[in-house]
Amino acid sequence: MKNIILELNELENMERVKRLKLINSISGVKSANLVGTKSKKGISNLCIISSVTHIGSAPPLIGFICRPNNEVKRDTFNNIQENPYFTINSVEQSKINNAHLTSAKYDEEISEFDECDFNEIYLKEFPAPFVSASRIKIGLKLQQKQKLINGTYFIIGKIELLIFPNSNFEKLMEESIGVVGLNTYYSIKKIKELDYVRIKK
Amino acid sequence: MKNIILELNELENMERVKRLKLINSISGVKSANLVGTKSKKGISNLCIISSVTHIGSAPPLIGFICRPNNEVKRDTFNNIQENPYFTINSVEQSKINNAHLTSAKYDEEISEFDECDFNEIYLKEFPAPFVSASRIKIGLKLQQKQKLINGTYFIIGKIELLIFPNSNFEKLMEESIGVVGLNTYYSIKKIKELDYVRIKK
Repeated sequence: MKNIILELNELENMERVKRLKLINSISGVKSANLVGTKSKKGISNLCIISSVTHIGSAPPLIGFICRPNNEVKRDTFNNIQENPYFTINSVEQSKINNAHLTSAKYDEEISEFDECDFNEIYLKEFPAPFVSASRIKIGLKLQQKQKLINGTYFIIGKIELLIFPNSNFEKLMEESIGVVGLNTYYSIKKIKELDYVRIKK
Repeated sequence: MKNIILELNELENMERVKRLKLINSISGVKSANLVGTKSKKGISNLCIISSVTHIGSAPPLIGFICRPNNEVKRDTFNNIQENPYFTINSVEQSKINNAHLTSAKYDEEISEFDECDFNEIYLKEFPAPFVSASRIKIGLKLQQKQKLINGTYFIIGKIELLIFPNSNFEKLMEESIGVVGLNTYYSIKKIKELDYVRIKK
């Protein structure tokens, strides 16, 4: 099969939306999650993200990309400045449409929990809202807010609270929802589990 | 169903491997890719990663986490210091076992291309090796090497060359391989494609 070969200048000259879709998709499937935050004024915010990254397990750190005025709105970024606690919540298959709606730009006085039909809950006195319907709920405290070369921020939090159903962990993971690009959602199906490879050759 | 609730001190006191598996898995499915680099001495290196992140599309930027002495070995990190060009290549379903083998620690004189049975190719005079078998091949130049709070690095590159089959793009994306944790591989299946939501309410 013939290949498409694009060099930097061709990418730069590509029509904006076409380039955005291509570059967002090309690195493959991402995990869909919802970030919950709360402003100093007490208004909660919920926003879908696809950039959740494992940073390390000791201490337990997770990061995500915060794009001012874009995929992740300023509300999330502003709220984390005001209140350094946030939550990462799994997207459930039955709530994909609702989760996707959180990517719209709502006024800052509006909570996406209300607008997109999610129940917010507060657990163990953690000072940020969790998504009641999410099987996996992660409560994090901001540790690093790193500006990147294009003006976006890499937000890193330490896990302070972790909640998940007491069921078969592998089955739990098989219910993960993936996203490619900005708006196509996928279920996942296990192909194989391999042994750890740690031999020095 | 009853939930498991873990607070930070319980995570910190958890047995190391159990914690590592839990924290690596809990944020959901990730995209499996292979990073190709080349040392100043001309030895190529190939390493599987699950932390590829979309940073932006104008300029086209992709990042990944580089863990010295861990998931991504020092070879990748050292090579990028010596030669700031690297490639990101899709993992194909038929090559999952080979891709997984690149996570072993080999001596720096050994190329994982040879050791794990991948053919390396050089395209358009790009100064880093691509994986011949990968449908999607991305050539990048280092733009930012950001140390994170736990000593790992966030490596950001600009796409200078992008190669993918001239076929149905959606079908191409449906062949993405996902990974949960460190060693369980998944195929993906489209659930739904939704419209962009960009209305200011």
